[in-house]
Amino acid sequence: MSSDCQPSRPGTLSYEQAGVDYDLIDPLKVSAQRAAAATAGHLARHGFAEVQASRGESAYVVDVGPFYIASIVECLGSKALVADEMASLTGRSWYEGIAQDTIAMAVNDLITVGATPLVVQAYWAAGGSDWFGDAARARALVAGWKAACERCGVAWGGGETPALAGIVEAGRIDLAASCTGLINPKQRLSVGDRLAAGDAIVLLDSSGIHANGLSLARKLLPRLPQGWLTEVAPGLGYGEALLAPTLLYSPLTEALWAAGIVPHYCANITGHGWRKLLRHPGAFTYRIDTLPPVPPVLGFIQRHAQQDDREAYSTLNMGAGFAIFVAAGEAARVVAIAQGLGLGARVAGVVEAGPKQLLIEPLGIRFGDDDLQLR
Amino acid sequence: MSSDCQPSRPGTLSYEQAGVDYDLIDPLKVSAQRAAAATAGHLARHGFAEVQASRGESAYVVDVGPFYIASIVECLGSKALVADEMASLTGRSWYEGIAQDTIAMAVNDLITVGATPLVVQAYWAAGGSDWFGDAARARALVAGWKAACERCGVAWGGGETPALAGIVEAGRIDLAASCTGLINPKQRLSVGDRLAAGDAIVLLDSSGIHANGLSLARKLLPRLPQGWLTEVAPGLGYGEALLAPTLLYSPLTEALWAAGIVPHYCANITGHGWRKLLRHPGAFTYRIDTLPPVPPVLGFIQRHAQQDDREAYSTLNMGAGFAIFVAAGEAARVVAIAQGLGLGARVAGVVEAGPKQLLIEPLGIRFGDDDLQLR
Repeated sequence: MSSDCQPSRPGTLSYEQAGVDYDLIDPLKVSAQRAAAATAGHLARHGFAEVQASRGESAYVVDVGPFYIASIVECLGSKALVADEMASLTGRSWYEGIAQDTIAMAVNDLITVGATPLVVQAYWAAGGSDWFGDAARARALVAGWKAACERCGVAWGGGETPALAGIVEAGRIDLAASCTGLINPKQRLSVGDRLAAGDAIVLLDSSGIHANGLSLARKLLPRLPQGWLTEVAPGLGYGEALLAPTLLYSPLTEALWAAGIVPHYCANITGHGWRKLLRHPGAFTYRIDTLPPVPPVLGFIQRHAQQDDREAYSTLNMGAGFAIFVAAGEAARVVAIAQGLGLGARVAGVVEAGPKQLLIEPLGIRFGDDDLQLR
Repeated sequence: MSSDCQPSRPGTLSYEQAGVDYDLIDPLKVSAQRAAAATAGHLARHGFAEVQASRGESAYVVDVGPFYIASIVECLGSKALVADEMASLTGRSWYEGIAQDTIAMAVNDLITVGATPLVVQAYWAAGGSDWFGDAARARALVAGWKAACERCGVAWGGGETPALAGIVEAGRIDLAASCTGLINPKQRLSVGDRLAAGDAIVLLDSSGIHANGLSLARKLLPRLPQGWLTEVAPGLGYGEALLAPTLLYSPLTEALWAAGIVPHYCANITGHGWRKLLRHPGAFTYRIDTLPPVPPVLGFIQRHAQQDDREAYSTLNMGAGFAIFVAAGEAARVVAIAQGLGLGARVAGVVEAGPKQLLIEPLGIRFGDDDLQLR
């Protein structure tokens, strides 16, 4: 349960203006975090203990003796609303990609702590039974869910398909995934203690907006001459570009382990854009010298939302979907292994001793400790 | 992902008439179940395997070597709508109990396979940030969640608190819980192979409607002279009675293990009422000779929905929240241990060789294999 505050300037469309008011959510999150932390002692009844450093990380980790268990539940968010709009316009279902997005939200977080995802459970809460009556859409959701499980090597354990009229809006669906995995052997645990000055920062390309920033993206519609069909690149409409499925990064983290590479830290770049590179609790300076290409849809959003680079990089992934911090001597191999799996990747910078800050040198941007408060 | 079909008769308010149409959901569920089953082989990549018999049971189980891991995600359903109505009428929050209900949905299912619940994740998807701005309600939700975790001895790992305007209705919240546990030692695994003719059926009392049948319960409102405040028993209004929190049964399953008792099978009595006693895949006759007392709110619903006993017992828990099938010689000890924990319990009947059927003798009711199709 993380929190976020971000100033907005006149003329720009910020994340808060897009409808999510963290000032209202934050007090609940803080009280929930405290209450949750206070329950850790119960594990002792069963002879186990939490990995305390995992509180505040992207997945919760418990030491059960021979290995660690990691678990998580993650929400898709509002990307399904774009799929619904595009279905009306194009007459086809976009839920195959939406399924991948939902699983990616859970799996890409779970792997940051060094876990191998094993089981995914589906949470598909519809606004009424009739949602499931659209057979083509339902088939797309099932097919996409299965394909994403295959890509990640996880078993789809089951799930819930409630019809929640009065809670979920008619014609809509609230999608989430829970995921359980093992950190096995235990040396794979990655909760930050290995990170050191001199480590390289490898950034993995994103496929587009992934599943964060969609409220902002939807808010731009009135500004676009042809709405969802406005081109962001030749032949590529805005809606279609937004719906590029989130990349799944667990095949890479598994391949790294198989190659004998243990990341020193990982960060899934989601709701706070590049500020997520500051997630590690320690005091380090992260110096970026090489930027990934910005996917057309994200450059398009930045322009139409009239965001400067600082605001764009603080909100959107801007081409970087996942960060792997690794010993400098292994960075080139990480890039090669990623590319071998079809994932774009580059050595983008270095970890240095110094005050906690992120320096995006090609853009002259600095984010400090105050810019990300997750704990 | 289970399915359900049930005929309705003129004059009565059935579950289908209450707004959930399984004919629309079932094809999706079947295709999802098939797709999910096809993913099990992925576990072999990691050196593990599913417990195939857990497909169709209430939680999914994976063999990871030294023990089994069980996981689940469960939805609260529409009970929160009753809490919202009662909050308007009474000026207080009812979300402390709602939190317990949500955790009970996950924990009471997880324990059926013999698992010790270890970690719960919270999924609280609100219709907008402002939901979390009601401080008293938010505090009640957090306090109830923490208290239920304490009662079950689980660690609250974290969770998601998205604001989903456009997906979740304004002013509402979609609540779910995921739960991960261990079956440790492995002899605790309970997926049906131990059940045998001669076993006793111990029924644990429910506290009321629990969290299944709320759509039906809400549908009755127009028939009630004083709405939510209509008395179901002296001094007890309908709304308040409905909101009695679901009982948590994991303290009992843990206590049974500590006492050296391994249930032969367990069934959480939820959405299909007493037909859930037919959940085991084998062919046995379940003969019930002793009924638990019917909570006033359930008798009230039966009367106002004009349901006969057969329909009521096929839809609602009618006083039985959980069933433990155990060696006959241990049944009295199970009852005593339950009572020591403050849970009502009774030896209600016996498992016999014979065709698959449930005979509720005091009421002259028979449910056959056709009355429950979960797999």
